[in-house]
Amino acid sequence: MTTIGAVEAGGTKFVLALADAEGAILEQTRIETRAPAATFAEMTAWFEAAAARHGPIGAFGIGSFGPIGIDPARPDYATFTTTPKPGWSGASIIEALARFEVPLALDTDVNAAALGEWLAGAGQGRGSLAYTTIGTGVGTGVLKDGAVLAGWSHYESGHLVVRRDPARDPFAGVCPFHGDCLEGLASGPAIEARWGRDLSSASPDQIALIADYAAQLAAALVLLHRPERMIFGGGVVKAPGLIEQVRLLTREKLAGYIAEWDEDLSHRIVPPMLGDKAGITGAIEMGRRALVTFQGDQP
Amino acid sequence: MTTIGAVEAGGTKFVLALADAEGAILEQTRIETRAPAATFAEMTAWFEAAAARHGPIGAFGIGSFGPIGIDPARPDYATFTTTPKPGWSGASIIEALARFEVPLALDTDVNAAALGEWLAGAGQGRGSLAYTTIGTGVGTGVLKDGAVLAGWSHYESGHLVVRRDPARDPFAGVCPFHGDCLEGLASGPAIEARWGRDLSSASPDQIALIADYAAQLAAALVLLHRPERMIFGGGVVKAPGLIEQVRLLTREKLAGYIAEWDEDLSHRIVPPMLGDKAGITGAIEMGRRALVTFQGDQP
Repeated sequence: MTTIGAVEAGGTKFVLALADAEGAILEQTRIETRAPAATFAEMTAWFEAAAARHGPIGAFGIGSFGPIGIDPARPDYATFTTTPKPGWSGASIIEALARFEVPLALDTDVNAAALGEWLAGAGQGRGSLAYTTIGTGVGTGVLKDGAVLAGWSHYESGHLVVRRDPARDPFAGVCPFHGDCLEGLASGPAIEARWGRDLSSASPDQIALIADYAAQLAAALVLLHRPERMIFGGGVVKAPGLIEQVRLLTREKLAGYIAEWDEDLSHRIVPPMLGDKAGITGAIEMGRRALVTFQGDQP
Repeated sequence: MTTIGAVEAGGTKFVLALADAEGAILEQTRIETRAPAATFAEMTAWFEAAAARHGPIGAFGIGSFGPIGIDPARPDYATFTTTPKPGWSGASIIEALARFEVPLALDTDVNAAALGEWLAGAGQGRGSLAYTTIGTGVGTGVLKDGAVLAGWSHYESGHLVVRRDPARDPFAGVCPFHGDCLEGLASGPAIEARWGRDLSSASPDQIALIADYAAQLAAALVLLHRPERMIFGGGVVKAPGLIEQVRLLTREKLAGYIAEWDEDLSHRIVPPMLGDKAGITGAIEMGRRALVTFQGDQP
């Protein structure tokens, strides 16, 4: 039986899965993210052993942390670029898997999670979908009819400039590039740096402030992508009351201009359904598609 | 010979063209935009006469002012929605052309112009392209491999929230929905309302202010669409020195985070090449595609 190898590569752990051709998981594990060479060696050894048990791997799907090149036509493909993670700039995850000599599909972790939620979670059946995570970083994947949208490379919604009222929020932001862009103001590290703790026990005013920044992204996504639905996930979004505030503030900011977003937004702005499984679900689907495309190319 | 009918529907004039199956214009005219019934009657009469001279029309392509429904699956398809233009809310441009009983393709004027520039102008051969017009309104069309991107409906970049420094720009904006969104601050009417004249004889400070707002959109488009190239057109962008300022300020705002945009942006942010012809060129292409799709559907 041909199997699919799937990787969700994160900054602290790698989730590895082997699935059958229909996408059902046969076996799964997680390994700690250490230096690239050690992590990659452990990863390939696991896949070799799992393939020996279940059947040869026909394709890989990989959802990875970044920034990472995702355009196969460009020289930085599959290579970590400006990541602050020590040792990882220049590392290539697919070089490590090259020995399997099978097709590989690579995308960002957030795009993989978006695909997972579209396939089997809160975005199921949506013609257009934006999936945003607000945690250590901020990222957004946008899908159109189940295909991940990207231009030259993946989107970088975390660095969107938002309005900050210095009287309400004197915090200058933590983004090393932009200071008070969205990620600089509303990511987990920004919240820690501003208040000395995470958002789980925050005051209503603190929740409202972070929700305001998230809603500014939501409004921008409505205007520049017109999704049917938006999923907001990540550690920051789990704070009590936050997503409800994002709904109210997004509607308020759009101010009636976009009819479909001028109503109770409980059905339009939703939390993820798959939780930690979204990324690996999407990675498996990427692998399945790579296998189908590859088989379609054969004479 | 089967011909293509093309319409560029604007708030002050309609451009009508008849083209051959390769897209070459056989005949063209422009009519004044009056009330819908009178405008539509003149339009259909012209197409009937032109078709009698050159050959029956096989498909129509229409690029229209808006807001207008562009999703054939929705009840507001081809219908003007919240337009402030008297008499036009609820008018349907394709109802008027239904008597020809041929396939029609409808999109916004800015998406048609984007397509025209991609096909034959400043966006030729670009895998990803964003075309923005800043004039009476502000709008953006984004193309991926020559296909217009849209979600539930067309994008509404004009209503993006931008940062406004009240000390530098105390003007509260003219947008009836949002006040000081991009369109409320940087559109032609906003400039007229703020300074009592258009931008053609503006001071360097005035140019720099409007360029700053345009650059905020440009940076947001880079982050949320990652286009290879951006075209900026429309009356406001013709002001001397404006596009040069937009280039400098876009790079400054992105602050080195996106490598491809951290260089001289003369090749990335460009004016349109087709001028007034972009919209009708795109509309003809839409009609050609509708004809091919329709013929492909025939047994």
